[in-house]
Amino acid sequence: MSLVVVGSVAYDGIETPYGKRERILGGACTYIALAASFFAKVKIVGVVGEDFAADDIAWLEDQGVDVTGLDRVPGKTFFWQGVYSPDMNERTTLRTELNVFADFQPRLPEAYRSQPYLMLGNIQPGLQSSVRSQMQAPRLTGGDTMNFWIDGHRDELLAAIAHWDFLMINDSEARLLSGEWNLRKAAEKIMAMGPKTLIIKRGEYGAILFRPDGHFIVPGYLLQDVFDPTGAGDCFAGGFMGYLAGLGMDGDLPRAALRRAVIYGSVMGSFCCEAFGPERFRTLTRSEIDHRYAELRDITDF
Amino acid sequence: MSLVVVGSVAYDGIETPYGKRERILGGACTYIALAASFFAKVKIVGVVGEDFAADDIAWLEDQGVDVTGLDRVPGKTFFWQGVYSPDMNERTTLRTELNVFADFQPRLPEAYRSQPYLMLGNIQPGLQSSVRSQMQAPRLTGGDTMNFWIDGHRDELLAAIAHWDFLMINDSEARLLSGEWNLRKAAEKIMAMGPKTLIIKRGEYGAILFRPDGHFIVPGYLLQDVFDPTGAGDCFAGGFMGYLAGLGMDGDLPRAALRRAVIYGSVMGSFCCEAFGPERFRTLTRSEIDHRYAELRDITDF
Repeated sequence: MSLVVVGSVAYDGIETPYGKRERILGGACTYIALAASFFAKVKIVGVVGEDFAADDIAWLEDQGVDVTGLDRVPGKTFFWQGVYSPDMNERTTLRTELNVFADFQPRLPEAYRSQPYLMLGNIQPGLQSSVRSQMQAPRLTGGDTMNFWIDGHRDELLAAIAHWDFLMINDSEARLLSGEWNLRKAAEKIMAMGPKTLIIKRGEYGAILFRPDGHFIVPGYLLQDVFDPTGAGDCFAGGFMGYLAGLGMDGDLPRAALRRAVIYGSVMGSFCCEAFGPERFRTLTRSEIDHRYAELRDITDF
Repeated sequence: MSLVVVGSVAYDGIETPYGKRERILGGACTYIALAASFFAKVKIVGVVGEDFAADDIAWLEDQGVDVTGLDRVPGKTFFWQGVYSPDMNERTTLRTELNVFADFQPRLPEAYRSQPYLMLGNIQPGLQSSVRSQMQAPRLTGGDTMNFWIDGHRDELLAAIAHWDFLMINDSEARLLSGEWNLRKAAEKIMAMGPKTLIIKRGEYGAILFRPDGHFIVPGYLLQDVFDPTGAGDCFAGGFMGYLAGLGMDGDLPRAALRRAVIYGSVMGSFCCEAFGPERFRTLTRSEIDHRYAELRDITDF
C-alpha cells in the first residue's frame, strides 16, 4: 500500500539571505516524496538526465522511496535557479532549463498501478490525467497546480481536477481558479468543480482545509530562522497525503484524520524551511515531527 | 471597576468595494470603547468639536460607555477620509483634518483616576504617558502605536511602553520597532523594552500573543464578506482589554485567560468588518459573540 508521487525531479540553484547553493536536489516530486516517506511507503514517477547523481538516488532509496519509476534518459536534468528577496516573500527566477523534463511522458511501472494513493505534483494537467488513468482504482487522489496552467490550460485542468479528492493550491491560485477574491466563496466554487476537499496553502500564515460541511484553519508554525522556503508547499502536500496513506484511509475520511493530516502537512512544510533545499530531511526523525505536532497543538489551544 | 480608554474620536469618510459612507462615526477610542463595552464598563477620554452629533453621544451611552471625559470644544471634530484597494489590503488616505484633535491634551476626570484598567489608543506617546501618570495605580495598561511614532518619536515611545503590560501592534510595526524581520526575534526584543505581553495583529491572518514563556497563535476568522476593515485592529484591542477587565483581572494573568482574551479580540475585530464603520455594534449581541467564539474553537480544534 504505497503512495505514488508524480512530478518534477530537478536540481536547483538557490540564493536566500542566509546563503547560496549552486546545485541542490529539488523538484516537486522530490520534496513530496521525501516528506511523505516519514509516514508511508512512496513510489515516485519522474525523469532525470545522465547528470543525476547516484548519491541522490541513494538518498531517496535510504528514505524507503521506490525509484523504479524514475526514468534516467540521455540529456540533462531539469535545472531551476532563483533568488529570494531579503524578506523571502518574493522570489525571482534566474534560469529555467527544462532539459529532459520537456519531454516527460510519465509511464507507471506495473507494480505502481494497483496502489491506492496518488499525489500529482504540479505538471501539465493533461499529464496528470494520463497518470491517473494508468492507475487501476486509486482510493485517494491529490493534486497541485499553478497559475500557468489555470490561465493557459483551463479546460484540461478542469477535466483533471474533476476526478481528484484533494486539490492543494495557494491563495492566489484559488482566487484565479474561482474568480473570487474571498476565500470562502472561492472554496465553494472550487469544490463544485470536483474536489470535495480543497486545501489552500498560505505560506507563513498556515493553511485552510475546506469541505462542503465546513472548514478547518491552522496558522503557520513560527520559525526562528527560515533558511530557504523552496519546496515548503510540496512538503505540505507530502506530509498531508503521506499521513493519510500511512493510516490506510479509504474514501471515507473522518474529520479528525483530515485535520491531523493538515497539521502534519504544516509540520513538514516548516521543517523544509530550516535548511537549504530538502537537506533538513537528511537528519529529521519521526520523533522530531511528533514533537512539533504537539507543539503546534500547544501554541494554538484555547 | 472600569476600563479607561483614551484616543481619537472622529468622523470618517470611507470607500470600499462594497460602498461608500460620507461621514460615519470613527476614531480609535470609539472602536475600542464600543468593542470593550460588550465585556466591561468603559469610560472614555477624548475630544470632539461642536459638530459632534448628539445621536453619537447617545449611541455610546446606550452601550454603557461613560462619556464624562469626552470634551466638547469649539471647532470641528477630527475628520479622516480614505479609500480601500479592490482587495482591501491597502488603503489610501484622501484627507486628514485634525481639527480639535490637534490640541488634544487628555485630562482624566477625577472618577477615572482610580480605575484599574487602561487602554491607550494610538496617539502621541508623550500623551499616552501623561494619561497613565494621571491614573493612581492601574492594574493593567495596554497600548497601541504606529510607524509614525516609532520612526519619529522613538525615545518618547520607549519611555511610554516601558510601563505597559500589553503592547498591541501589527507585524510591520513590530518589525520597525525591533529592527528584526522574524517575528519571534522581534518579540524577544520588544518584550525586553517593557511590555511582558506583546500582541502582534496580523489582519486577516489573525494574531500572535507573545509572553516570555512562549507564544499563542490564532488564525483570523474567515468572513464571507468584508465590508469595511476600518477599526478592526482597535476592536481587537477593545475585545482583548474588555474581556480581561470584565474578569476583574489583576496583574497575575493566567495563560488560559490571556488566550481567551485574544480570541475575544479576534471575534470583535471580525464583527467590525461586517459593516461600515462601527455600525455592526448597533445590533451585535453577547450571544452572537459567544457563538463566534465557539465557532473559532471548532474550526481550529485538532
